[in-house]
Amino acid sequence: MNFLSDTTAPAHPKLIEAIGAANTGFEASYGQDAISARVEARLREIFECELKVLFAVSGTASNALALSVLCPADGVILCHDEAHIHRDERGAPEFYTGGAKLVPLAGAHAKIELSALDRVLAEIPEGFVHTSPVRVLSLSNLTESGTAYTVAEVAERADRLKHRPALIHMDGARFANALVSLGCTPAELTWKAGVDALCFGATKNGALGAEAVVLFPSVLDRFEALQARQKRGGHMAPKMRFMAAQFEAWLDGDLWLDLARAANARATELAAGLAGLPGVEILHPVDGNEIFARIPEPVAARMRAGGAGFYQWPDGSARLVTSWCTRADEIKSLIAAAV
Amino acid sequence: MNFLSDTTAPAHPKLIEAIGAANTGFEASYGQDAISARVEARLREIFECELKVLFAVSGTASNALALSVLCPADGVILCHDEAHIHRDERGAPEFYTGGAKLVPLAGAHAKIELSALDRVLAEIPEGFVHTSPVRVLSLSNLTESGTAYTVAEVAERADRLKHRPALIHMDGARFANALVSLGCTPAELTWKAGVDALCFGATKNGALGAEAVVLFPSVLDRFEALQARQKRGGHMAPKMRFMAAQFEAWLDGDLWLDLARAANARATELAAGLAGLPGVEILHPVDGNEIFARIPEPVAARMRAGGAGFYQWPDGSARLVTSWCTRADEIKSLIAAAV
Amino acid sequence: MNFLSDTTAPAHPKLIEAIGAANTGFEASYGQDAISARVEARLREIFECELKVLFAVSGTASNALALSVLCPADGVILCHDEAHIHRDERGAPEFYTGGAKLVPLAGAHAKIELSALDRVLAEIPEGFVHTSPVRVLSLSNLTESGTAYTVAEVAERADRLKHRPALIHMDGARFANALVSLGCTPAELTWKAGVDALCFGATKNGALGAEAVVLFPSVLDRFEALQARQKRGGHMAPKMRFMAAQFEAWLDGDLWLDLARAANARATELAAGLAGLPGVEILHPVDGNEIFARIPEPVAARMRAGGAGFYQWPDGSARLVTSWCTRADEIKSLIAAAV
Amino acid sequence: MNFLSDTTAPAHPKLIEAIGAANTGFEASYGQDAISARVEARLREIFECELKVLFAVSGTASNALALSVLCPADGVILCHDEAHIHRDERGAPEFYTGGAKLVPLAGAHAKIELSALDRVLAEIPEGFVHTSPVRVLSLSNLTESGTAYTVAEVAERADRLKHRPALIHMDGARFANALVSLGCTPAELTWKAGVDALCFGATKNGALGAEAVVLFPSVLDRFEALQARQKRGGHMAPKMRFMAAQFEAWLDGDLWLDLARAANARATELAAGLAGLPGVEILHPVDGNEIFARIPEPVAARMRAGGAGFYQWPDGSARLVTSWCTRADEIKSLIAAAV
Repeated sequence: MNFLSDTTAPAHPKLIEAIGAANTGFEASYGQDAISARVEARLREIFECELKVLFAVSGTASNALALSVLCPADGVILCHDEAHIHRDERGAPEFYTGGAKLVPLAGAHAKIELSALDRVLAEIPEGFVHTSPVRVLSLSNLTESGTAYTVAEVAERADRLKHRPALIHMDGARFANALVSLGCTPAELTWKAGVDALCFGATKNGALGAEAVVLFPSVLDRFEALQARQKRGGHMAPKMRFMAAQFEAWLDGDLWLDLARAANARATELAAGLAGLPGVEILHPVDGNEIFARIPEPVAARMRAGGAGFYQWPDGSARLVTSWCTRADEIKSLIAAAV
Repeated sequence: MNFLSDTTAPAHPKLIEAIGAANTGFEASYGQDAISARVEARLREIFECELKVLFAVSGTASNALALSVLCPADGVILCHDEAHIHRDERGAPEFYTGGAKLVPLAGAHAKIELSALDRVLAEIPEGFVHTSPVRVLSLSNLTESGTAYTVAEVAERADRLKHRPALIHMDGARFANALVSLGCTPAELTWKAGVDALCFGATKNGALGAEAVVLFPSVLDRFEALQARQKRGGHMAPKMRFMAAQFEAWLDGDLWLDLARAANARATELAAGLAGLPGVEILHPVDGNEIFARIPEPVAARMRAGGAGFYQWPDGSARLVTSWCTRADEIKSLIAAAV
Repeated sequence: MNFLSDTTAPAHPKLIEAIGAANTGFEASYGQDAISARVEARLREIFECELKVLFAVSGTASNALALSVLCPADGVILCHDEAHIHRDERGAPEFYTGGAKLVPLAGAHAKIELSALDRVLAEIPEGFVHTSPVRVLSLSNLTESGTAYTVAEVAERADRLKHRPALIHMDGARFANALVSLGCTPAELTWKAGVDALCFGATKNGALGAEAVVLFPSVLDRFEALQARQKRGGHMAPKMRFMAAQFEAWLDGDLWLDLARAANARATELAAGLAGLPGVEILHPVDGNEIFARIPEPVAARMRAGGAGFYQWPDGSARLVTSWCTRADEIKSLIAAAV
Repeated sequence: MNFLSDTTAPAHPKLIEAIGAANTGFEASYGQDAISARVEARLREIFECELKVLFAVSGTASNALALSVLCPADGVILCHDEAHIHRDERGAPEFYTGGAKLVPLAGAHAKIELSALDRVLAEIPEGFVHTSPVRVLSLSNLTESGTAYTVAEVAERADRLKHRPALIHMDGARFANALVSLGCTPAELTWKAGVDALCFGATKNGALGAEAVVLFPSVLDRFEALQARQKRGGHMAPKMRFMAAQFEAWLDGDLWLDLARAANARATELAAGLAGLPGVEILHPVDGNEIFARIPEPVAARMRAGGAGFYQWPDGSARLVTSWCTRADEIKSLIAAAV
């Protein structure tokens, strides 16, 4: 029973099969292959708009690549104080942008508070040569606390940047989990709400290693620059077909949504089970596949003794992540062990 | 019959199988997995020394990562004028080093001439604050002309840098092809000849997408920095086991050497066939799996009509690359078509 | 009556004279001149220790140069949320470090709160590859609110970093003003309290344009790298003697302390005068030559009508800066006009 | 008798006076002062066009700042192999551009050969994602060998880039010396010949420390970005009036041209004198104030014994630089001593 991270989970067998199936004969390299083209076409259907896409091997890479074409070297990227791009990427956004400044904002449950956003926008002037101007607002969905920004919450924040030459980035490492939780369409949660570029993650939801940067209509003209950055960053994999093949299988028949639904359902069951234990406090709404809880040490010890792996956060709370392959009986036996 | 590039070739079936086999259960992420550890142990045997290794998704990435820990931002990297790091990586080495200067050197058959090396070393002073100092010599083996530096040639060039605080980088995107061609050991061609870090490529020789940066004993203390760069560059793949698994299968039973031998053998046959055609001139020694030739247009047209894909270089010459899966009968029918 | 900024003030006549006096005959360039050497010797006396110094044309430059040798590209620089390096330098520290991350901390009167410092140190792990590690604590003295950290306050904050491989940077654009206010020695306020490098500003206190980066004994070995950065950043002025000459005259006979005392005295008088006006609130302790006050608009209007220039901050408060040449009678007539 | 470099010379007394004259009262900082505005207006007259200008403290800074707005991070800057930007600026162009690639070209007397330019343009494709595209051609005038590109030579080279999205940079550290040597107008030698941006140096020709980046009509829209870079690079000096004042005095009454004429005249005399000495070979046309000569050691020894300072180049040749204040009698006594 592994609840450490969805990155420790295996890949879905259909994606493994797809890789084998893609291994036939010669194929154009560096993203010019037929599968990549098919995935882009499929994404246009899913997102109901013109778009451009390219692949990368990690969420850190896709975030950094996207930000590098959204934000100039001397711009400011606004993000939540706990954002992955700020806390967990070893400064990849700073590296790829050439030194942009990430300004962290407060907000409960890892959602940027509107008041914090308003304050920083009031503080950072536009057109003042001494001050790095705001150029990007980055929203994670799921957030780092496992909560989901609703369509309205995304739009409300994006709107605040409307009168600036600024763009909206969405870190969607767990986009599928947010989407099925909210029950809206991919278009509604992204470009229709003001998002210009999405980092669309598959790795945590069944892929071997496949992330996509999706540019929506407002920033299509940056695609050539994005490809140049992909190459310059070493992310233009020679045999890109094997990354594209993962996406094709993952999107096929809405497998990606099914996998996210499964993970979310297990998280809901686990949260319910944990909430019933004495002294356990669930710290954030469980909108996706992550649970943050304060768990009394004896309970946590019993869970570990029952075979469950999970992280203890520095503040003493625990993070438990379910994945596409977490089984309902595992949840049950974990809760049973914990009692 | 595809001779465009070994990056257009499929992966060897054993590597596909290995990926499937690695897809069992949960596994530590970000390179902490058991397979990665086994690959490192295996590489220690192969290279007969202590070493550290990490993986990347492209040769551009592995070169840039390696150079970023070998060369400071204000250093000079000496390389051949036709080096991949200089011509074909969209400035990835400049990006990862923070702006190092690549100084291109001349030399027939894409091997750096000793006289050119001596001249530049005489021109670039050490310890002069106005001038970027030489910090790295980068050698490609195979070279960009498909030739192989011998052990003596590597050592001779590496020696020239001995009295500077400079290091030797080897771009080994086709290291296996050079090695089997030369008939020496991996250790002889690298650290014993003065190489400090090797970019060891598997993608062009049967992998789906797997490159390794190998640090030899002289630079082991830079491994922590290398890992930080891997993360910062977005190359620390979450499910690294799938990259490691490719290496494990590729190294197993010396498959990597067999595949390189096959590709080289086809190139030798193809070169012999081409050389017998009227007006064809082979431009460089064929030490590995690449042939550069001046081919009269009627001949080239017949080859294309016979189904062969290959690149026409800007100078009018043709490049033909064989791969691990090129068949001897394809060579024969190509030559037959060309006559 | 100009209270906009001490950067709008003229230079002290003795520095103008010194420049003329330095203009005799030929002199070694790029900082190798005799005057530069004499200034370094004089600074050793003033700071009572071995040190290395180099000059730059702006405080932004000296801060960025210093930070570039204190912090690696993937490190974190802790600073107050209102720090000049964070708010007013267009990302120069990010640029010169190659993309370091500035993490802003809270604290009244622009002094970093110990609790905020403790919290961030608890949150940012050491030796975790995913997270940029803390490498520098930057303290401004005077702070951006015109307050002075005492020796004890500097030492207390510096101590918190002791068990990390981290260094202490002091932005001393108004170091002289802090020093005379506190009545301690330059050594006590810097290296004896744990400061590794000081950006020592003269421009705001009587110079034409002269800032110094001072490396204390703990980081002397970084001087060669600092010089390389100075050159690479374009700050190694060919005729450096004219910058050095300013410093020599400014330090001679403790002119620098006299000028700072004059500016501080005027600020004290001005603050006292303002405090006596109806509805005026002085927002921060006036430790140096800057006053931040909430001034009712009618009062502010009368001050402006009386000929006083000063900045209105976005939050509605006013900043008034005195300089070495502000006269006591100007203060009196300003207050008289304001009543 | 100092012939080491024009950077070791003093400033012209009129510029010292101008600095004193500028030191009256308060003045807007960071380049918003009245003198800066007057200099820009004067430059419009001199260059007969709309233009924007900003100042920097060194030629390295002005080159790097200019290049940073002419060339993207992943672009190529073509320059002569001996160009100051390539050899003598510690990689400042790479730093300021974010890692652009300088590709060195051959050519006698430090002028880029047309054939070398044509070859590299043929080799570097446009619109190929793997290859850094050519974005800037940089010409030094005077060149590093003290020769001057004629108007036709500048135009011929600039024309070669016409069909690319590329721009022309001129390193004019000794622009005045080239101009008076050629007898053309500033407009003819720059924008009329295709130059987009000029780094216009005063420091080597009588200033204390003042260089200007001049943007011509074709790139005026990059001025805002240039100012941001100036700030970010630490080159927006607070009391900019003192830099502007130097330029004002230097341009006033065409002092700058008189000073260049004087230096050039001395160089012509010195070259003539040297050429008459047994065994001395003048290596390049003496178009400005620099002489490169092969001087037999006994002759050189006598020159040194006569009190002359000059640099010995690594290849054994000598460089002698005259300055605005070199006197004709110094030349005579040097030659007399050398006989």
